Amino acid sequence: MYPKKFEDLIQAYSKLPGVGRKTAERYAFTTLNWDEEWINEFITSLSSIKDGIKRCEVCGNLSDGDKCEFCMNDTRNHNVICVVQSPKDIAAIESMQEYNGVYHVLNGLINIQKGILPENLNIQSLVNRINNDIEEVIIATDPTVEGETTALYITKLLDGRTKVTRLAHGIPMGGHLDYTDAHTLLKAFEGRK
Amino acid sequence: MYPKKFEDLIQAYSKLPGVGRKTAERYAFTTLNWDEEWINEFITSLSSIKDGIKRCEVCGNLSDGDKCEFCMNDTRNHNVICVVQSPKDIAAIESMQEYNGVYHVLNGLINIQKGILPENLNIQSLVNRINNDIEEVIIATDPTVEGETTALYITKLLDGRTKVTRLAHGIPMGGHLDYTDAHTLLKAFEGRK
Repeated sequence: MYPKKFEDLIQAYSKLPGVGRKTAERYAFTTLNWDEEWINEFITSLSSIKDGIKRCEVCGNLSDGDKCEFCMNDTRNHNVICVVQSPKDIAAIESMQEYNGVYHVLNGLINIQKGILPENLNIQSLVNRINNDIEEVIIATDPTVEGETTALYITKLLDGRTKVTRLAHGIPMGGHLDYTDAHTLLKAFEGRK
Repeated sequence: MYPKKFEDLIQAYSKLPGVGRKTAERYAFTTLNWDEEWINEFITSLSSIKDGIKRCEVCGNLSDGDKCEFCMNDTRNHNVICVVQSPKDIAAIESMQEYNGVYHVLNGLINIQKGILPENLNIQSLVNRINNDIEEVIIATDPTVEGETTALYITKLLDGRTKVTRLAHGIPMGGHLDYTDAHTLLKAFEGRK
């Protein structure tokens, strides 16, 4: 029905999560009316994603260089590590302006049904980071089945090697960390056990 | 917070209609996990949009070549012209498998408040298409204020030069043509006046 080039764009948009045919058509028609400059910016950003966004060699966070902004920052406490599922969660934790440690990004959660095992996650590098200087590892995965499983796994793995804490309840069960407001997050941090 | 390249991609997705910050982040994280092939297809389709999707020189429909598939098709009745707002509407009309004429795409509707005047639309080329062979012009704009205004304007413009009809009520007022099912559209075609 549509010209092939245009249909290709609709197909590309259809691959985004939650985007059906009608929405993809709407996106494609919007793109059709964009300035060349906007489309160029879009292409440039997609190309840079293709070339690969760097991961911090220490913590696995998305990064501009070899190390991320937190691992490079000397004013932060490098002896407290907060373990999160995704870089999105770091933004949520930073928004409460209370935490001053560093992070470790797992890039996923253990999910046996989906075939995501501990060795598929960024867990070994967390174990390698643990030494006598590390005061605390705070596990801040989502309070879902997968999040709890992963937290339990890491807790057992680090048992006796360092102090391991888990965010307190306060975040509703089944909720997602990056949708939690800063105040609730603060309560969860304070009540960690 | 995020690396610049990644933030750029989020900003690009944010420009799509109805996409806020959270959704744009979700799209960007999805893109991060795509195969290189998928990203290449996306970039290729965006580049071809930038180079310009051709418009049919007769009716203004999106087209692969100089003329669209309908204007090139000799089995269609070129003496009946259906006037639509957008190429999207053609797909809806074709889905009822009843109409065998050709189309004319206005690429918008008259909207004084938004500054869209008759001269901004593909109306003059419609007037140029009218000759003694043209049996009927069917105006199939949406039954909204802008759609009715545009229909009235075109009806007056072509008055006395050819037979002008308007789709019958049947499409709910305030509705959009491309969300109408084929049966309702058929009724609207049959009852045109």
